Amino acid sequence: MKRFAVKGDIIYTKTPAEFSMAADSYILCEDGICRGVVPSLKGAWKDADVLDYSGKLIMPGFVDLHAHAPQYAYRGMGMDLQLLEWLNTYTFPEEAKYADTAYASRMYASFVDELVVGPTTRAVLFGTIHTDSDLLLAGLLEKTGIKVFLGKVNMNRNSSQALTETTEESLSETERFIKGLDGFTNVHPAITPRFVPSCTPELMTGLGKLAEKYSLPIQSHLDENKSEIQWVRELHPECASYTDVYRRYGLLNAHTVMAHCVHLTPDEEKLMKDSGAFIAHCPQSNVNLCSGVAPVVHYIEQHMNMGLGTDIAGGASLNMFRAASDAIRVSKLRYYFTQQDRPLTVSEAFYLATKGGGAFFGKTGSFEDGYELDAIVVDDTGFSRLENLNPAQRAERVLYLSDYRNIKEKFVRGRRIYEES
Amino acid sequence: MKRFAVKGDIIYTKTPAEFSMAADSYILCEDGICRGVVPSLKGAWKDADVLDYSGKLIMPGFVDLHAHAPQYAYRGMGMDLQLLEWLNTYTFPEEAKYADTAYASRMYASFVDELVVGPTTRAVLFGTIHTDSDLLLAGLLEKTGIKVFLGKVNMNRNSSQALTETTEESLSETERFIKGLDGFTNVHPAITPRFVPSCTPELMTGLGKLAEKYSLPIQSHLDENKSEIQWVRELHPECASYTDVYRRYGLLNAHTVMAHCVHLTPDEEKLMKDSGAFIAHCPQSNVNLCSGVAPVVHYIEQHMNMGLGTDIAGGASLNMFRAASDAIRVSKLRYYFTQQDRPLTVSEAFYLATKGGGAFFGKTGSFEDGYELDAIVVDDTGFSRLENLNPAQRAERVLYLSDYRNIKEKFVRGRRIYEES
Repeated sequence: MKRFAVKGDIIYTKTPAEFSMAADSYILCEDGICRGVVPSLKGAWKDADVLDYSGKLIMPGFVDLHAHAPQYAYRGMGMDLQLLEWLNTYTFPEEAKYADTAYASRMYASFVDELVVGPTTRAVLFGTIHTDSDLLLAGLLEKTGIKVFLGKVNMNRNSSQALTETTEESLSETERFIKGLDGFTNVHPAITPRFVPSCTPELMTGLGKLAEKYSLPIQSHLDENKSEIQWVRELHPECASYTDVYRRYGLLNAHTVMAHCVHLTPDEEKLMKDSGAFIAHCPQSNVNLCSGVAPVVHYIEQHMNMGLGTDIAGGASLNMFRAASDAIRVSKLRYYFTQQDRPLTVSEAFYLATKGGGAFFGKTGSFEDGYELDAIVVDDTGFSRLENLNPAQRAERVLYLSDYRNIKEKFVRGRRIYEES
Repeated sequence: MKRFAVKGDIIYTKTPAEFSMAADSYILCEDGICRGVVPSLKGAWKDADVLDYSGKLIMPGFVDLHAHAPQYAYRGMGMDLQLLEWLNTYTFPEEAKYADTAYASRMYASFVDELVVGPTTRAVLFGTIHTDSDLLLAGLLEKTGIKVFLGKVNMNRNSSQALTETTEESLSETERFIKGLDGFTNVHPAITPRFVPSCTPELMTGLGKLAEKYSLPIQSHLDENKSEIQWVRELHPECASYTDVYRRYGLLNAHTVMAHCVHLTPDEEKLMKDSGAFIAHCPQSNVNLCSGVAPVVHYIEQHMNMGLGTDIAGGASLNMFRAASDAIRVSKLRYYFTQQDRPLTVSEAFYLATKGGGAFFGKTGSFEDGYELDAIVVDDTGFSRLENLNPAQRAERVLYLSDYRNIKEKFVRGRRIYEES
């Protein structure tokens, strides 16, 4: 049994409603699991090893619930387009290049390099349809120590020729991808139908069965953009809604994460809630592609499962600090223009970025007893010399200033996976 | 006569409507003034010295039309508040500390440090009411080579006791500040009534006379927040509008810049346009403080004078690249929610951040013949290894990725003022 304590100014959220903070305190860690936050070490912990980060902030690791690894290479481009046009102009031509593993190797390396130095300790990622390149990416990610659900993407209709699989190869390649991750510790497969317009009912049904057979999580996109929703309606007159398509073809359950959910109808909201599926709110992407703003405060009030995603490259930034402050910003404009709900608070955004999304991985994203110890150590002394700030005020600045050069160390399940060089 | 040429991938905007670009070309510079952009050196320029930045982007310097130097120290704090509450909770208590020049010296140094390494080559800045601290800031800024209009702030009503001057001292201290900048090359005074609620008509009138006597520009705030506007209406029943208060008391002319202008009425818009006054659009601040979104595309179509401001610390970032991409983002949400106007384009945002705001300083912010050569050299090779991007596509990424670690050198009026160490 390996025990140690992490000392510093501790900040986390048990609930969206408020921060839990403990200045100059200790997180107890036993075999990678948090055993409480205490002001001093006593009893069995009296002589435990201490990792002393006095004066620095200790936060839970951040969880990126939705990002596309192959889109990192062209982030910040074509941001004048809306979803469907952007996919055809930038995304599909670029993703087609990942048939070439040499190309994928170069591009994925830079994606992984940034992921390592940022605040993300867990991520749910899309690859492309190309199994070999996806396995290559998995290999790069495995070495980082970051915990990842990674998907080989499935597409068998309405895509460019280069990105259209047959149903059979899409399913068999998915199975090859799943088996290729046998023995991986950090990277595990996720079933990844791109979105309804890209997958026939037959493919979706087959993927649902694979998810069941191998007990795998599922990720896709839902209700991002009004034209997309209209298209799905035309494609699936047999279904009551976009969400209902996923339900009907066996892809909606408590281990599903759906990116966006900007425009859920009340019926769809009920389907999502009843299934226990997660929402990956991607604020920057929804603005860049002019998709709208999800009613996040409403979803919180409905106790829906939800976290945040950067959605590289609908979002131009892989920085989860920024995703959290962007979530606040877009909620303010939604409130300003619609007078519905209220803006997201800082603790709510922090919760979504940590414990909210962390729940997709189990007990992670908090320092409560029984949670896996994923943590980042942040040196915020460079922000200014203002005195007497509490950890919550300092955490707000970390989200708003979004500079991850301040991240000094990063832990996953009690293991240090990154240390600033 | 000192001549040289700057070689690289050149990108700038003559008009908001489109980028002007010239890959692998030369900007001719004579005594600090641009003499055109050419594909090769000929004739009198054949043997000119060349600063060779081949492969790098050369952009005009960015112009921050509105920021508060003393607010840098607490940027990213209290972003859950709206304007008037935020001023009372954070701004006024913090600004009061600048009565202490030792405190001001420490805090202003870090503000100036960031300004130097960012893309800003010209700025219009607020100090505080404290003349000695303002002069100290002026001294720090003067050394950077960045061209600045700096204001000693005037406040003689509705403020905390520590920040309330008498009319006489406010005017005499302003004159002391103006005289204190005699002999400065880069920093020049701007008349700076904080905003109407902080200044009596007598003070505003006196300040207008000082502006005239010394031929100085004027900066203030206008129509930022609906509660503020209502307050001004109550304070000035003798005036037709908030804008009309400034006009009536001699503060609205072609060398005035008004921050925000989120809620101009058609009459106010006409007053602004007829006067030739500039609008400093501050997108991030307007979101953070839930003020709304200025109708920027409409203002462009009306040919109003306008640039962008970071508005530190209503905006949490001093990064003008980010101000430009934020301007695009907020325009998209305004369009999404109101269906009015259309989103801002990339070239429009770039124009506002360079030539649009630059016009407040004269002929700057472009590489056209006769413009002062303010330029930044950006190495964007780290963004990814995508091939065959043109300078406009690369500029879009610079704005969206907003990482000014890529800025290698910075020039003001033909003089190199910054070089990455």
